[in-house]
Amino acid sequence: MKIAIFGFGTVGSGVFDVINMNSDIIAKRAGKPIEVKYVLDLRDFPGNPVEKVLVHDVNVILDDPEVKIIAEVMGGINPALDFTKRALMLGKSVCTSNKELVAAHGAELIQIAKEHNCDYYFEASVGGGIPIIRSLCDCLVGDDIIEIKGIVNGTTNYILTRMGEDGLAFDVALKEAQDNGYAERNPAADIEGTDAQRKAAILASLAAGAQVDCADIPTEGICDITAEDIACAKSLGAKIKLLCNIRRDDEKVSAMVAPFLVFENCQLYHVNNVFNGILVTGNATGDVLFYGKGAGKLPTAGAVAGDIIEAAKYYGIPSDIIWSTEKAHMAAQGSRLGRYYVRLDEKDAMEARKVLGVTAEGSSSKAGEVAFLTETMNEKDFNDKIKAFNVLSKIRVYD
Amino acid sequence: MKIAIFGFGTVGSGVFDVINMNSDIIAKRAGKPIEVKYVLDLRDFPGNPVEKVLVHDVNVILDDPEVKIIAEVMGGINPALDFTKRALMLGKSVCTSNKELVAAHGAELIQIAKEHNCDYYFEASVGGGIPIIRSLCDCLVGDDIIEIKGIVNGTTNYILTRMGEDGLAFDVALKEAQDNGYAERNPAADIEGTDAQRKAAILASLAAGAQVDCADIPTEGICDITAEDIACAKSLGAKIKLLCNIRRDDEKVSAMVAPFLVFENCQLYHVNNVFNGILVTGNATGDVLFYGKGAGKLPTAGAVAGDIIEAAKYYGIPSDIIWSTEKAHMAAQGSRLGRYYVRLDEKDAMEARKVLGVTAEGSSSKAGEVAFLTETMNEKDFNDKIKAFNVLSKIRVYD
Repeated sequence: MKIAIFGFGTVGSGVFDVINMNSDIIAKRAGKPIEVKYVLDLRDFPGNPVEKVLVHDVNVILDDPEVKIIAEVMGGINPALDFTKRALMLGKSVCTSNKELVAAHGAELIQIAKEHNCDYYFEASVGGGIPIIRSLCDCLVGDDIIEIKGIVNGTTNYILTRMGEDGLAFDVALKEAQDNGYAERNPAADIEGTDAQRKAAILASLAAGAQVDCADIPTEGICDITAEDIACAKSLGAKIKLLCNIRRDDEKVSAMVAPFLVFENCQLYHVNNVFNGILVTGNATGDVLFYGKGAGKLPTAGAVAGDIIEAAKYYGIPSDIIWSTEKAHMAAQGSRLGRYYVRLDEKDAMEARKVLGVTAEGSSSKAGEVAFLTETMNEKDFNDKIKAFNVLSKIRVYD
Repeated sequence: MKIAIFGFGTVGSGVFDVINMNSDIIAKRAGKPIEVKYVLDLRDFPGNPVEKVLVHDVNVILDDPEVKIIAEVMGGINPALDFTKRALMLGKSVCTSNKELVAAHGAELIQIAKEHNCDYYFEASVGGGIPIIRSLCDCLVGDDIIEIKGIVNGTTNYILTRMGEDGLAFDVALKEAQDNGYAERNPAADIEGTDAQRKAAILASLAAGAQVDCADIPTEGICDITAEDIACAKSLGAKIKLLCNIRRDDEKVSAMVAPFLVFENCQLYHVNNVFNGILVTGNATGDVLFYGKGAGKLPTAGAVAGDIIEAAKYYGIPSDIIWSTEKAHMAAQGSRLGRYYVRLDEKDAMEARKVLGVTAEGSSSKAGEVAFLTETMNEKDFNDKIKAFNVLSKIRVYD
């Protein structure tokens, strides 16, 4: 079976390597040998083994009926969307790591794939090497999925871990992440939560079986988290983690991305550094945690390779991913019930304690400040109540 | 689509409940409604809704061409093996939680299913609700699986957790587990490691793609673990966990079940109480952890229901699980390299430290005893070297 790879960046070269490195076992599992016939990239790679199969024109690949499966690992919406649509309409299955495209056009592309008897797979779009997509679509299928909460961005988890371990300031931890190659030079998509938001949109859509847009997912990043907050959280027995949280209730779905205080009794507390962890709650199975490397060349490439093998093994028998183009019924925003961590001026403390209630006292090392956990209330009430005070930090609590 | 359930015990009644409770979502995912036409059990259940579909004679079910899928949740080899074979030969797919049968006859039953264009699925046989089997067979397929290490028995994990938390003696913790319904009245299969051994045989066979028999898996239970050992391990920063450990190297596979010291940097350290955790290492994806409830009525039933849905969705298009009836090439026993925890008489301490090397000193609360971690060596060397001493405990270290 002949395949092509769109894009020879980090993931693309990883897919090329994995297909070659594990060719024997892949042939056995796919039921036939898999060969990379073309790699599409605008650039040249002199001296690289890819040269023999490198092409600059997508039409060479689309026009070749021998190519049955394409790994789209270019990233971005354009031209990936156009290329993917054309490939699917020609009956070529497409396997991708492109979370931006999947979040925005997944439902539509799945629909096109179905109409043309081929597959659109996207295991690598969430959680890198963690098999969360196929687990949701093919494994936990006897369950009604009630909740998904996950650490789905390794960069921010690394930054928060380093802030917690060594008391680093956010800027210092970010710089360290960049120096170690865990954050990009322009880190906005990670630290502002956009990357996690895209993944949340994909997970929420699969949980609901209908379209959840990024725009429907309130998102807060970690830029405002201070070393002081991390220390206060520690004094409360908690860590701060950037979570995506998806809940389903009465046929309505809600999704958000925000920092949360997480306690030691939650498995996500133990998901540190660049690792990802996704906790899925089904009404029969209860909690299942998936943990692993959420990014990186080989883990992501391994997930794309897994998709390619599934597409090859069941070529002509498309799988049926339930993700309709209809909009999901979203729960009203601000209806989430939970506790909050607040840090505020000592002068507000007595009144704030009375109004918000206190369920745990933290210790702030800064003179003139107090930190505590409030009682359980909904988001709207909380935000109304704190208007009277000079709140320095407010972070949701995951109980 | 009509199905039947063989056995109306804990898991069987759970499958019955899940199929009814989640019928809408199951119909959507399977692409057709799924209805339980028969439940097979020798007993009567007066007043139970199952009465309407209860039969005592397996032939009623096997002879009914309307029944396409069977959930075999009887347990044991006989008559489950005979019933399963007959069902598969009639082209009826079988989904099971019966780890004893899968470990002993899985390869053969998969072969029969292939020959009769149906499926033999066994997601619930390892890790209860954790989708480890399908992840190995359909998700991590781009990877060469190098290692699997797992806590696959919830009963022993509960006992070891309670011993560690409250310093309970083994017998006291076992009694508590029995009182809470986490251990059976005859706990031998759990505490002696037989249950974990069966699961290890299934995982090792899937990792190797060939048959690994229980007899090829050296197995030690937890009966000899003392409160003293747990306390010494704690002083070394470790917990004691019953692990199954499967390694693949140069086309050879090794598997064992034994207590290990596990440190905090390993995710399995955080898998406590009745939970299971399975850490899979692929050569591309690296470490992926699967965590969840390894037993219990609904988690196990959820996994069986997931299999039923997959079997229904792809009815007539059997999946291809690679597990040949040929024996896997096993590595020589005793070749495993690792450190050991030893506890011994003070009088032997000086000589033992010299012979075994010391990499960490534990503190034993018992007068006249010492505990430490040795240097890395293979099992055969270790066992030869300790012959000279009165070793009170020896436990492998997972580094």
